[in-house]
Amino acid sequence: MLRFGEEDFKNWERFYRANFFNSLGGFKSLNLLGTQNKKGVTNLATFFSAIHVGANPPLAAILFRPHTVPRHSLENLRETGYFTLNSMPVSKVEQAHQASAKYEEGQSEFKALGLTEQYESFAKAPYVLESAIKFCLKLREEHLIEANQTILVVGEIVEAIVSEEALSADGHVEHTAVNNLLVNGLETYYTANVQKRFEYARPETKPKVKQ
Amino acid sequence: MLRFGEEDFKNWERFYRANFFNSLGGFKSLNLLGTQNKKGVTNLATFFSAIHVGANPPLAAILFRPHTVPRHSLENLRETGYFTLNSMPVSKVEQAHQASAKYEEGQSEFKALGLTEQYESFAKAPYVLESAIKFCLKLREEHLIEANQTILVVGEIVEAIVSEEALSADGHVEHTAVNNLLVNGLETYYTANVQKRFEYARPETKPKVKQ
Repeated sequence: MLRFGEEDFKNWERFYRANFFNSLGGFKSLNLLGTQNKKGVTNLATFFSAIHVGANPPLAAILFRPHTVPRHSLENLRETGYFTLNSMPVSKVEQAHQASAKYEEGQSEFKALGLTEQYESFAKAPYVLESAIKFCLKLREEHLIEANQTILVVGEIVEAIVSEEALSADGHVEHTAVNNLLVNGLETYYTANVQKRFEYARPETKPKVKQ
Repeated sequence: MLRFGEEDFKNWERFYRANFFNSLGGFKSLNLLGTQNKKGVTNLATFFSAIHVGANPPLAAILFRPHTVPRHSLENLRETGYFTLNSMPVSKVEQAHQASAKYEEGQSEFKALGLTEQYESFAKAPYVLESAIKFCLKLREEHLIEANQTILVVGEIVEAIVSEEALSADGHVEHTAVNNLLVNGLETYYTANVQKRFEYARPETKPKVKQ
């Protein structure tokens, strides 16, 4: 085992350090964040940081890192109050990665990437038609992380669009059913295989595999 | 495609809703959070919400959900100022799941689960010996999410312990090299396969596969 401490972290070359800390924490979901500005110019950005915040009310959060992510998405969702998160299948891995490129303002990533805008109940945020599991959020809160000036944006999920084959009878949304991507680090993309599905864990019993 | 809105979300049965929103956002890293209290009683809890916050200084965050996660971990890390995040291999999937059971105060999950405490530079937080990629964090900030009273805890990474076989020459930590688990929903565990590794994305070029 290799052990690294604060002195190592300070002395590492910048890209080595970025690769290390972006991948240390493990696998993440991959989402394209869809927004548009007041003029109707749409924007897509790759996000690796969506987290579940709660089920009732349904809440999710994403983190905006000022130095690495174009800020158009943040400006847009502040303007309109809405944004979408769109998972992507392995067949669209090139487009998912390319969405992290820094396109200029006024240029829509949808067109540049060959992806299709889709509008449902909340017309102020575009979905990605090619995504089989996606949801729309309404901006609820922002929190400034003082340690590095990143911004946590919390949204309430106001609509969800899910491919029928991915939805289990108990409500579980199975991303492997639509060959969805996951990611780690700055540029490594993965698919997943189910290993185990358990019943709810209790201290007095051993883990039970779900039938 | 199935479309659901706010009326559906309100009317769903509680467990269906929990399953749906815990899995909608996609795959997550799985970590066991290691802490101890002032008396030296250790605690492990399963966490699905670790996110990368920044590389310089190295920061990560986790979300505490008051109603679903035992609060011992939060109380402990407030007492000592330190906590560890420990990824887990597929060979320990039963223990990883069982760590989400609500054990009583004063009972260490290490012993109940048959996992081994490991102490390195920061003796106030136990690592899991069986974990091949793990790190220790110092508490930096807490943010209360007003929408549902969850708490985002931001920590600075002060030590990282990584199996040599997982560390690439460019700093990328490859969790598949040590068969690490990922998770989605409340109880479904996965392993991953690398699909693509790209060069940094630029608007003027097509995605290039990394050699």
